[in-house]
Amino acid sequence: MLSEKMVTLGTKKSVIREIFEYSKKRAAEIGAENVFDFSIGNPNVPAPVSIHETIKELLDSRDDYYLFGYTSAQGDADTRAAIAANLNERFGTSFGADNFYMTCGAAASLRIVLGALTLPGDEYVVFTPYFPEYRVFIESAGATMAETPANPDTFQIDFDQLAASVNEHTKGVFVNSPNNPSGVVYTEESIRQLAAFLEEKSAAYGHPIYLIADEPYRELVYGDVEVPYLTKYYKNTLVCYSYSKSLSLPGERIGYVLVPDEVENARTVYAAVCGAGRALGFVCAPSLIQHVIAKCAGQVSDLSVYKKNRDLLYDSLSSYGFTCVHPDGAFYLFMKSLETDAYAFCEKAKKYELLLVPGDDFGAPGFVRIAYCVTTAQIEQALPAFEKLAKEYFA
Amino acid sequence: MLSEKMVTLGTKKSVIREIFEYSKKRAAEIGAENVFDFSIGNPNVPAPVSIHETIKELLDSRDDYYLFGYTSAQGDADTRAAIAANLNERFGTSFGADNFYMTCGAAASLRIVLGALTLPGDEYVVFTPYFPEYRVFIESAGATMAETPANPDTFQIDFDQLAASVNEHTKGVFVNSPNNPSGVVYTEESIRQLAAFLEEKSAAYGHPIYLIADEPYRELVYGDVEVPYLTKYYKNTLVCYSYSKSLSLPGERIGYVLVPDEVENARTVYAAVCGAGRALGFVCAPSLIQHVIAKCAGQVSDLSVYKKNRDLLYDSLSSYGFTCVHPDGAFYLFMKSLETDAYAFCEKAKKYELLLVPGDDFGAPGFVRIAYCVTTAQIEQALPAFEKLAKEYFA
Repeated sequence: MLSEKMVTLGTKKSVIREIFEYSKKRAAEIGAENVFDFSIGNPNVPAPVSIHETIKELLDSRDDYYLFGYTSAQGDADTRAAIAANLNERFGTSFGADNFYMTCGAAASLRIVLGALTLPGDEYVVFTPYFPEYRVFIESAGATMAETPANPDTFQIDFDQLAASVNEHTKGVFVNSPNNPSGVVYTEESIRQLAAFLEEKSAAYGHPIYLIADEPYRELVYGDVEVPYLTKYYKNTLVCYSYSKSLSLPGERIGYVLVPDEVENARTVYAAVCGAGRALGFVCAPSLIQHVIAKCAGQVSDLSVYKKNRDLLYDSLSSYGFTCVHPDGAFYLFMKSLETDAYAFCEKAKKYELLLVPGDDFGAPGFVRIAYCVTTAQIEQALPAFEKLAKEYFA
Repeated sequence: MLSEKMVTLGTKKSVIREIFEYSKKRAAEIGAENVFDFSIGNPNVPAPVSIHETIKELLDSRDDYYLFGYTSAQGDADTRAAIAANLNERFGTSFGADNFYMTCGAAASLRIVLGALTLPGDEYVVFTPYFPEYRVFIESAGATMAETPANPDTFQIDFDQLAASVNEHTKGVFVNSPNNPSGVVYTEESIRQLAAFLEEKSAAYGHPIYLIADEPYRELVYGDVEVPYLTKYYKNTLVCYSYSKSLSLPGERIGYVLVPDEVENARTVYAAVCGAGRALGFVCAPSLIQHVIAKCAGQVSDLSVYKKNRDLLYDSLSSYGFTCVHPDGAFYLFMKSLETDAYAFCEKAKKYELLLVPGDDFGAPGFVRIAYCVTTAQIEQALPAFEKLAKEYFA
C-alpha cells in the first residue's frame, strides 16, 4: 500500500554508501589511519574563513526577522543580485537578480528544473560516466534517461553517439563539466559543436532541447584550464549550481537555478521553475546562508590541496602502470580497472585497505572512481598499497 | 512544451502574496506605520537568545567538516536523538533517533510523506478551513484532496461530514492542531473519536488510513490548553514538524518527519520516506541548523506577545460586534465576514488600511484570516479602524 519505488529508493543503498559503511567498520577494527577511503566526495578543505566571519557579523548586526525569516520563494533579492554581479564580472554575462531562483543545492536545482520542464514521454540525454543520482531525479520527474557513451579515451562528447541518442522526445541534455566522476572538462570546441548540434535538432523537432548545466565543480579546475560558460554558447541553457564544493558547504544545501533571458519564453520557464519548487515542497532556500552568499559570492575555498593531490596521485598511479584520463577539474580520478569486472578489482584493492568505487553505477563498467578530496598524507600513505595492487596484475 | 501545471503554480500568486505586494506599495505611499497588515504568518518574535549563542559556540568549537559537511540523508544522529529525548520527556513517548527523518521544514515533511505513501487513485481528507498549500502538495503527489467541513461554530471535527468523505480510496487524514487559519486546538475527545473512527475504517477497507499530523504550531498555545500528542491515540500517525514557529526560524527550513514504531510496517514506511526525500531532490536538511537543534530542541521563543495580542484583538473585535471562534493556539484569528462575499468585505477593510485575507483559499468562504504575529502596537493602532469597519455594517 506504499509507493514501492520510494521504498526501493530508500532501502537500496548506493555502492558508495555501502563502501562508506564498510570503511567505518574497518576503521574500528584496524584504526582509521590504516584504511585508505577514497569513496566519498565530501570536501575536506575548510570553507573560507570569511564564511565564519560573515555569519558572526550577520548575527551581531541584523535582527532575527532578517536573519531567519522567510525570504521570497525565489530567494533574497540582494543575494540574487550579488550572484548576478559576480557572474557578470567573471564571464562578461548580463544576468540580473530575476534570472536566479535560489535552491537547497544542486540536487534540488536539477530536480526542480526537471519538474518544470518534463511532460510525459520526455527523454533526457546523459553522457556516461555520470553522477548516479541523475537517474533518480529524471525518473522521479516522470521522464526517461538515455545513456550516451562519451569518448572512452578522453571522456569528451562522442557526437556520433549523441546523434544516435537524440530524437523527437529529447527534452534536454545534461552537461556536467568538470565532470563527476572523470574530472574531465569539456573543451570549448566540444561545447561549440554541442551547441550547433542542439540548435539543429531543436529546429528539426520544432521545440527547444535544453542544455542542463550541472556545475557544482565549476571553480574546481587546476592550472590554466578554462570552463566555458555555457549560456554564452547556447541560448536554451539552464544552469544548476551549488556552493557545496566551491565553498565547502555541502551540508548547508545552498545553490541556484539560472534561467537566462536568452532562453525561449524565459519568464514562462522561470515561472515553471518557481512552480516546480513549490510543488516539490521547497518554500525558500535556507535564509542565513543566503545572506552569507550575498556577501561571499565568488569566493572559493583553498583548492591548492586538491591540485597537489591530483598531481601526486595521477603521476604515481601512472608510474605504477594504471591508466586514467588526466583530470583537469573536480576531485575525482576515473581509473581503468585492471580486470574487466571492476567489482572484483575493488575487492582485490580492499585487501590493501584501498576503498575505491566501481564505475558501474556511473554507467561505466571497467572503471573505478577515486575521490581525492582527502588529506595529502592519506594519499602518501596509500601509494604503496596502490603499487602492490598494480603488481598483482603486472607481475 | 513545459509543464503547464508548474507554470500555473509559479505564476498564480496566492491571495496572501497579492495582499503582501499591495501592502508594500501602500506603505511606500502613506508610510508603513499607517498600513495595518495582518496578512502574513511570519513570526515577529525573535528566536531564543540561545540560538545565536549556540551558532557562535559551534563556529568556535567545531571544524567545518562537522559544521557544514553532509549529514546522513536522514539527518545527524545526535540531532535526532536529542529530539527523541525531548519528546519522550514531554509526552511520555519512547521514540528513538531512528524514528526521525530531518527535513527542510513542514512543507518538505508533508510533501515527502505524501510522496512516500501515495499510489495512483489515493485520496486525502482535509478539514476546512485548511492551509492552502495542502492542495498543492497533495495534487503534486498525484492524489486527490477531499475537503471536509469542520463544525462551523467550533471548527472541531464534524464526524458526520468526515464519515461522508472517507472511502476505500482514503489514504490519509490531515490534522493541523493548533490550526492555521482558525487557531483552534482539537480536544482530546475529538482525537479519541477520530482515532476510533480511523481504526474502524482501516479495518473495514483492509489498509491503514494514516493520520498526518501537521504540527508547526504545537508549542503555540495559550493558557493551560493541552494539545494531545497524536501518536499516543492512533498508531498509524506520521508527524510532520517544523521549528519555523516554535523557534521563530521560518527561513531556516528545518523540521522532521516522525515515523513511530507503532506504525504498521514502520521500517518500510520509514524507508519510503527516505526514498521520497531522495526522489524529490532533498539530500539532507541544512547541517549547521541541525546541530543547533541538537542543543536547543524543546526551547520555545517568547510567546507572551502572541498571547497578549490574541487577548487584545479577540476582546476588542468581539466588543465591536465581530464574531470569531476563540483561538487557543497558533497566531491567527478566523473571523466571520460581515457580508457573504469575504473579498468585498476585505475591500471595505482596505479603506481603513486594514489588510485581511479572505477565507476562500482556506476552503471557508465568508471568513477572513487575521494573522496577529505582529507588534502589539500595530494592533493598538489598528483597533479604531476595526471599529469603524464594524460600524459600516452595524450602523
